[in-house]
Amino acid sequence: MNSQQIHLASRPSGMPTQENFKLVEVELPSIQEGEVLIKNTWMSVDPYMRGRMVIRESYIPPFQIDEVLEGGAIGEVIESKNENFPVGSKVSNISGWRTTFISDGADLTLLPSVELPDQHFLGVIGMPGLTGWVGLFKVAQLKPTDTVFVSAASGAVGSVVCQIAKQYGCKVIGSVGSDEKAEMVKAMGVDAVINYKKVDDLTQALREAAPEGIDVYFENVGGAHLEAALEVINPYGRIPVCGMIADYNADVPQPGPSNLLQINTKKLTMQGFIVMDYWEHYGEFVEQMGQWVKEGKVKSEETVYEGLENAAEAFIGLFEGKNKGKMLVKI
Amino acid sequence: MNSQQIHLASRPSGMPTQENFKLVEVELPSIQEGEVLIKNTWMSVDPYMRGRMVIRESYIPPFQIDEVLEGGAIGEVIESKNENFPVGSKVSNISGWRTTFISDGADLTLLPSVELPDQHFLGVIGMPGLTGWVGLFKVAQLKPTDTVFVSAASGAVGSVVCQIAKQYGCKVIGSVGSDEKAEMVKAMGVDAVINYKKVDDLTQALREAAPEGIDVYFENVGGAHLEAALEVINPYGRIPVCGMIADYNADVPQPGPSNLLQINTKKLTMQGFIVMDYWEHYGEFVEQMGQWVKEGKVKSEETVYEGLENAAEAFIGLFEGKNKGKMLVKI
Repeated sequence: MNSQQIHLASRPSGMPTQENFKLVEVELPSIQEGEVLIKNTWMSVDPYMRGRMVIRESYIPPFQIDEVLEGGAIGEVIESKNENFPVGSKVSNISGWRTTFISDGADLTLLPSVELPDQHFLGVIGMPGLTGWVGLFKVAQLKPTDTVFVSAASGAVGSVVCQIAKQYGCKVIGSVGSDEKAEMVKAMGVDAVINYKKVDDLTQALREAAPEGIDVYFENVGGAHLEAALEVINPYGRIPVCGMIADYNADVPQPGPSNLLQINTKKLTMQGFIVMDYWEHYGEFVEQMGQWVKEGKVKSEETVYEGLENAAEAFIGLFEGKNKGKMLVKI
Repeated sequence: MNSQQIHLASRPSGMPTQENFKLVEVELPSIQEGEVLIKNTWMSVDPYMRGRMVIRESYIPPFQIDEVLEGGAIGEVIESKNENFPVGSKVSNISGWRTTFISDGADLTLLPSVELPDQHFLGVIGMPGLTGWVGLFKVAQLKPTDTVFVSAASGAVGSVVCQIAKQYGCKVIGSVGSDEKAEMVKAMGVDAVINYKKVDDLTQALREAAPEGIDVYFENVGGAHLEAALEVINPYGRIPVCGMIADYNADVPQPGPSNLLQINTKKLTMQGFIVMDYWEHYGEFVEQMGQWVKEGKVKSEETVYEGLENAAEAFIGLFEGKNKGKMLVKI
């Protein structure tokens, strides 16, 4: 059995390019007692992977040159010598970027028995969904009376944040980078959408959308979005920091907002978090969110690229704003 | 009875100057039933007052042109028609910047019966002391095993923070802007002092002083100090934001640090606070801190200007780094 894999060919400098990736075919050995052979059907590309492509201090070790990349994936067991994972089992795993692989089961999780499409476990009821849910409820202590501003509102996390906050009773304002994405976010029922590429003054646009101020800023972007949020946020506002995608490809560090003093003046709490620290809540989350999705209260938004050979293009597309909702590769 | 008062003559643009202040003499009426006449003996000048001199969104209203300034002071009752404040009572009040004033008692607090010099109630056991104590224990949740970095370490708040953290068992690194201040902070027993004006690379200097990283950054300054702290701070670090004095006189907003992404990567919590929200802890604080001061575990550091006519100079001196410890005016 052969496996096609995407390896890291070189470390990106600035925006990743096709040259940073290499499609390699390797032969897999036969499985041993306790092992299973998995065929991946879906894989995830996520902005955080950019951080692993370079060597820097981070919460996860960097990818190695000429080694296969990693990431979330969904697969099916096609050969098994492990009774916990019989042939036909569907599993979520962290061995994306490859068609097939062998596992002893330690890194596999059987998909929960929620009757939803498999790929949802990489999106709305997977890591991005949990990230949004955790950021709102566990970090920002969301209240139904809050006005919530969400940057990258059409993204995998942002689209979930908008929908959770909206159906929780909050007023929600989303920011996106194209009219097409604005339409998508509007269709999710949010109260206002800002296409930040079309406004001269993001702070002013946010103030108009939220004359009463915002209480929570769900930070996915950094830069001008953070600056606008700091201006318009109310005293005791909360800023869960999920990411700052504007900075991920910056080779020359970009200066931060000039109004950080607002953190003091308004007694704000800005808190970085990563979803790994909250996996204990996954069961609770998947039950609640699965229900919302089944009831149509939260919709899964997905952009799908077909074929492992297009995974690099899908990944690069994340930084070019090509995804609406969760960016996925169907293998 | 006449009162000398300092009025706001004009709003400062950039660094405050003498022209922004005016010494005025006004006549006070006789006191009525329920009122007392107070003679101030000490007054405080504090960086936060700069914010009240201009019109902007803040937690307290701005000072008005041609009206008397306000601020913390200690005074003595010299005439009384209020049985709660007999003649000779010593009171802390918020009617600084004047020699005498009339009060109905609502804004007066009798000095707690701690046998310490009166002016300490404007410093180490007053607002600056409580600010440091609250920032460390109530905001940053200080642990004895923490390494703590303190900017403006020789200031009214910073000098208290250094000493509290040190005697709590922490490793403490202070940053100051002169060799003279470095000597003062060293004498307080901290583990390392950085004169930021003498180092090429503050991040590198901090890393050398704390090769194990820092866990808490007590933020008084902003700018390059915050940038260095974000680089050297450990995962789950806490940044209580007490102030950002570097920004107070900036007419042209200064860009923030370029490494705010660390808030996400390191899962940091950055929390602004103001001492007013924590007055409920004053009793607990004054008991603990008063004891530490009496035992010599925490020393009161003070810089004293003599005479109300020099209050503006004392205030301006705050932004020129002229104070070591608490800046006070003896009236």
